[in-house]
Amino acid sequence: MQIKELLKQSPSEQEVTVKGWVRTKRGQAAVTFIAINDGSTIHNIQAVAEGGAIDEETLKLVSTGACVAVTGKLIASMGSGQAVEVKAEKIMVYGTADETFPMQPKKHSMEFLREKAHLRFRTNTFGAIFRIRHALAYAVHKYYNDNGFFYLHTPIITASDAEGAGEMFHVTNFDMEKPPRAEDGSIDYSQDFFGRQTSLTVSGQLEGELGALALSKIYTFGPTFRAENSNTTRHLAEFWMIEPEVAFYELEDNMALAEDFVQYVIKYALENCAEDLAFLEKRLLEEEKNKPQNERSELSLLEKLKFVVDNKFERLTYTEAIEILLRSKPHKEKKFQYPVEWGIDLQSEHERYLVEKHFKKPVILTNYPKDIKAFYMKQDADGKTVRAMDVLFPGIGEIIGGSQREDDYEKLLARTKEVGIDPENIWWYLETRKFGSAPHSGFGLGFERLVLFVTGMTNIRDVIPFPRTPKSAEF
Amino acid sequence: MQIKELLKQSPSEQEVTVKGWVRTKRGQAAVTFIAINDGSTIHNIQAVAEGGAIDEETLKLVSTGACVAVTGKLIASMGSGQAVEVKAEKIMVYGTADETFPMQPKKHSMEFLREKAHLRFRTNTFGAIFRIRHALAYAVHKYYNDNGFFYLHTPIITASDAEGAGEMFHVTNFDMEKPPRAEDGSIDYSQDFFGRQTSLTVSGQLEGELGALALSKIYTFGPTFRAENSNTTRHLAEFWMIEPEVAFYELEDNMALAEDFVQYVIKYALENCAEDLAFLEKRLLEEEKNKPQNERSELSLLEKLKFVVDNKFERLTYTEAIEILLRSKPHKEKKFQYPVEWGIDLQSEHERYLVEKHFKKPVILTNYPKDIKAFYMKQDADGKTVRAMDVLFPGIGEIIGGSQREDDYEKLLARTKEVGIDPENIWWYLETRKFGSAPHSGFGLGFERLVLFVTGMTNIRDVIPFPRTPKSAEF
Repeated sequence: MQIKELLKQSPSEQEVTVKGWVRTKRGQAAVTFIAINDGSTIHNIQAVAEGGAIDEETLKLVSTGACVAVTGKLIASMGSGQAVEVKAEKIMVYGTADETFPMQPKKHSMEFLREKAHLRFRTNTFGAIFRIRHALAYAVHKYYNDNGFFYLHTPIITASDAEGAGEMFHVTNFDMEKPPRAEDGSIDYSQDFFGRQTSLTVSGQLEGELGALALSKIYTFGPTFRAENSNTTRHLAEFWMIEPEVAFYELEDNMALAEDFVQYVIKYALENCAEDLAFLEKRLLEEEKNKPQNERSELSLLEKLKFVVDNKFERLTYTEAIEILLRSKPHKEKKFQYPVEWGIDLQSEHERYLVEKHFKKPVILTNYPKDIKAFYMKQDADGKTVRAMDVLFPGIGEIIGGSQREDDYEKLLARTKEVGIDPENIWWYLETRKFGSAPHSGFGLGFERLVLFVTGMTNIRDVIPFPRTPKSAEF
Repeated sequence: MQIKELLKQSPSEQEVTVKGWVRTKRGQAAVTFIAINDGSTIHNIQAVAEGGAIDEETLKLVSTGACVAVTGKLIASMGSGQAVEVKAEKIMVYGTADETFPMQPKKHSMEFLREKAHLRFRTNTFGAIFRIRHALAYAVHKYYNDNGFFYLHTPIITASDAEGAGEMFHVTNFDMEKPPRAEDGSIDYSQDFFGRQTSLTVSGQLEGELGALALSKIYTFGPTFRAENSNTTRHLAEFWMIEPEVAFYELEDNMALAEDFVQYVIKYALENCAEDLAFLEKRLLEEEKNKPQNERSELSLLEKLKFVVDNKFERLTYTEAIEILLRSKPHKEKKFQYPVEWGIDLQSEHERYLVEKHFKKPVILTNYPKDIKAFYMKQDADGKTVRAMDVLFPGIGEIIGGSQREDDYEKLLARTKEVGIDPENIWWYLETRKFGSAPHSGFGLGFERLVLFVTGMTNIRDVIPFPRTPKSAEF
């Protein structure tokens, strides 16, 4: 039985076997207390070995990091904090761990733990994070399944570029030292595995649209990639993205879906990860003690999550947002680093002002200038803006980006050419606007941004098991 | 309301709006019948436009492939096969489709539909396949979540090779025409994005083990890649794999998990995809009509699925399997193409004999010769075999491959060197056997093989939305 289940049992004379890793061992000759964790819960179960019950040779091997099976009766615990403990009658040591085991019970820096990503799962913090990450991923699938969406596996290796943005990793089967050359000396990609140049996808959206324009409601949940040399706490070269796409949805439906969806998954975490969240909330409070008062969060982690679940997101247009920013104190006092005027790409400082100072809740900005948004977004009648939407969260910034898609063949074709994409390269995408085109909308949510928000962690490398960043692909 | 829901309603005078794509239009001036599908179900809803209710100009635009919204009362249907239909009062045409729309209501070859993968979702067959694929994927997540497993996202870009097998795609950010060179003239990978040579993963297992040796029960479900030049109906260069990994599980537990898991997901499909499966069963019967009697399936699709769900899988060792093959009629009559003797890698013909002729049910083969299996498998005491297991399915062959893992540091290190893997390259993997090692086991299931089995399709390119194969990365 896993420790999570054992801790829910009533004390009894029943014999149980606990399998897990030793977190700590303390005590004297007369009695030894062993805290064991198996990753099923943040809580350890205590095994108590009274003098003589376990031979000394075995007890010596029971040290922090060792893997053991303890057999004995489940009895009422004398200590506080747990109802039951195991009175050890037999201990089997599966694997020892000497004093070089890096996860000793003391404070480790996050940098150190990142270098030991193969072992950091065995700490309270990372156990909690990855259990919550699981719960959030499951909630994503449950939400879409329960609402009639079909999960679509869009391709990872692709010959198209959804964002027209470059910054893609190349995928090749060539011997890179000497790839075959064409007569003009250039690399002959027709001899590569796929007979053409291929890359890692930056988004499953274009293919997702193909699915939605037949199955009506689809979503993707898969890895996406950016070969962007950004060494920040918010960027990964490999990250997981969720992209629903729905036929017959216009921008308003899309906003309603985004809000309902993100509130659902956070609520799911609140209901299913209470103990892990309580641990992370306490952790965050400890962390913030070292910060000056004005840098501390106004809300605790749980308060922040409940706040997002309970409050309707504020909806306004980009143009309205610019007006608010122009009237704002930081603008008038020239405190913004970047200038504010209609047409700019909003900077983090602007988004934070809107979300954290002005509205004090999640905000959905819509109808951005078309020149700062992707080619596939539906053009507004004014010829200047597109039916885009960004959902901005406190502390995180943009967590969701989406739009209604251009469904008019001629307009889409013209825009494709305008931004310099070869229509031949996405003939299949354009064709869906020729055969039974329909209004449709969708968005993308960066899964790690969501996990970051829900766990209260501050570096995105700590919410994915094995982060991929510039100069780092260990494990 | 989606068509799936509408078809469950009772006829009433209530006004409804149906949105979807026209599959067929027939009728005369007096009355027009329009079959509409929105992908939520295999069934169309019929809209009936009586003379004069809809203007002629609009009716002309309502052709196969067009996207429409039909508003009218939901009434009892006169025709057979459906309880309700919509008496059209208003038709809005979102997008037209002229006669060049490729999915006209006639028989198309699978090859043709593969070339039109962006539109094949709009056919009955592919609608059914991708709804079933969704249901199977959801069942995978539900099974593991309900059984206390944590979903772990293992990395896609990797610097290690789990199988020691080669056949990996390179990932690079270099300008491939002129990558930077070191002094000796070789490519200087220290200048590449990750500061080293990287590839696309062939398996998340090694990283999955790191998770299991802390969280106890994990699973992965993500894309994996093989740069293998295999142009067959069973191979893809990019496919999705499910890999559970469990601490404290030995080979027997692993077999029990594999059997329970695969029976669960197939049962889930039987219960949740009855209509789509009935359609595919009929399709398969039609297909097989053209085959000679002895090549037709003994069981219908549904019978085959129920058979797998209801029968315990046969368990035997590789050595026992070889003995059965040596005693078999095809061996004695020299009908096998490949020779049978202890030590060989079983060929498809051998597996099929065991599964389809000898046992007539799914088979789990265990304890294979160590020389034909991966370095990480736990060695048996005899020094000759390892604690491997392969689950073989009728018609598909190997659907699951797994093993108990070697948990002894010295044995694993020795085997690593023996097979020519540099221990430095997987130092983190080896270290888990130094710090609190535990018995553990896991397996991999190729998701597309499962979808192939459940849908009764015969080409793996037809069960993934956009197949990646040699010389093909379209869409």
